[in-house]
Amino acid sequence: MARRTGRRPGNPDTREAILTAARQVFGERGFDQASVRAIAAAAGVDPALVHHYFGTKDNLFLAAMDAPVDPGELLPQALAGGPEEVGERLVRLVLGVWDSPAGVAALALLRSALTNDWTARLMREFVTTQIIRRVLGQLDLDQAELPVRSALVASQMAGLLVVRYILRLAPLSTMAADEVAAAVGPTIQRYLTGPLTAAAGATSG
Amino acid sequence: MARRTGRRPGNPDTREAILTAARQVFGERGFDQASVRAIAAAAGVDPALVHHYFGTKDNLFLAAMDAPVDPGELLPQALAGGPEEVGERLVRLVLGVWDSPAGVAALALLRSALTNDWTARLMREFVTTQIIRRVLGQLDLDQAELPVRSALVASQMAGLLVVRYILRLAPLSTMAADEVAAAVGPTIQRYLTGPLTAAAGATSG
Repeated sequence: MARRTGRRPGNPDTREAILTAARQVFGERGFDQASVRAIAAAAGVDPALVHHYFGTKDNLFLAAMDAPVDPGELLPQALAGGPEEVGERLVRLVLGVWDSPAGVAALALLRSALTNDWTARLMREFVTTQIIRRVLGQLDLDQAELPVRSALVASQMAGLLVVRYILRLAPLSTMAADEVAAAVGPTIQRYLTGPLTAAAGATSG
Repeated sequence: MARRTGRRPGNPDTREAILTAARQVFGERGFDQASVRAIAAAAGVDPALVHHYFGTKDNLFLAAMDAPVDPGELLPQALAGGPEEVGERLVRLVLGVWDSPAGVAALALLRSALTNDWTARLMREFVTTQIIRRVLGQLDLDQAELPVRSALVASQMAGLLVVRYILRLAPLSTMAADEVAAAVGPTIQRYLTGPLTAAAGATSG
């Protein structure tokens, strides 16, 4: 591997060994059950070294995922301004990342998750723990409904990304992010805060 | 290739040559612009032979896609019973196919479309011409809105399939089809017949 530049050069072999161990342990146990201690043990290094290289478990996870952005830094924007239009703001935020230069790496990650069970597991953990749980944590919801709301949000977001960036189905592939957010936002909003049965259906036009 | 069994054995090389030509021409021109004549020319055979082997252009397309089911046979079920709950019935129909033995082939097709630009193009044509256009044709809608409605429906359906069958995100991966249809149906319904802006949003809970 090429030696990385940045503020923590260290030993690139050690760094890669930790990342490999992290992918394995996160994939096997999930984000919550994977401890820095277990990852350090799998890499054959001291836990203090893991913290030295990567800081928090969150940051280690983002590095293990090759995540092009840190949702923890971006999400407060979408969540600021109250729960009423959070669905639309979330769609705008996600498309903002995917339409940016970081979108190339994000697309590579999604393609990999769609074809590789291991990456799929990590992606599932990433989306659940780094994105959706943070969003749902800000809303006043029945805890028992969180898993299904989370999966429903993921279904619409994943589909939007697949259709806009992989299948490139017009006009969703060419519409401005704001227009897409106006059309898809209410779906995310209902999955987050609305009733989850057919009574929430659209009026027919 | 192994010789196929069935009512049209014919020459397996000719049959495969026609299918290869069909994938190429459908992929290049799209379903509507691809003629049986052009496909026959690309395969170096007489158009009558294409009709002999595959019947209609629709059937040739389904064979070229290796489609595990014929949407033209299944969709009337979902469309019977009026437009009010067509969203929910469509979700139930799609999950019925994917939860059945045919789902294995359908999943292989989706995975291939997600990783291969050529299959993605064919899949886009398949979804648009064989499924969504037929559904939208039954509803009394503004023609100018059909492309965006079609792409929005595809986004939610594709995402549901990705999350339930590829990423296997619980509880969407384990819920009964009827429960999923109750939660996702209203989204499809709004994309088909509802208003397409935020005014259609959910009530917050």
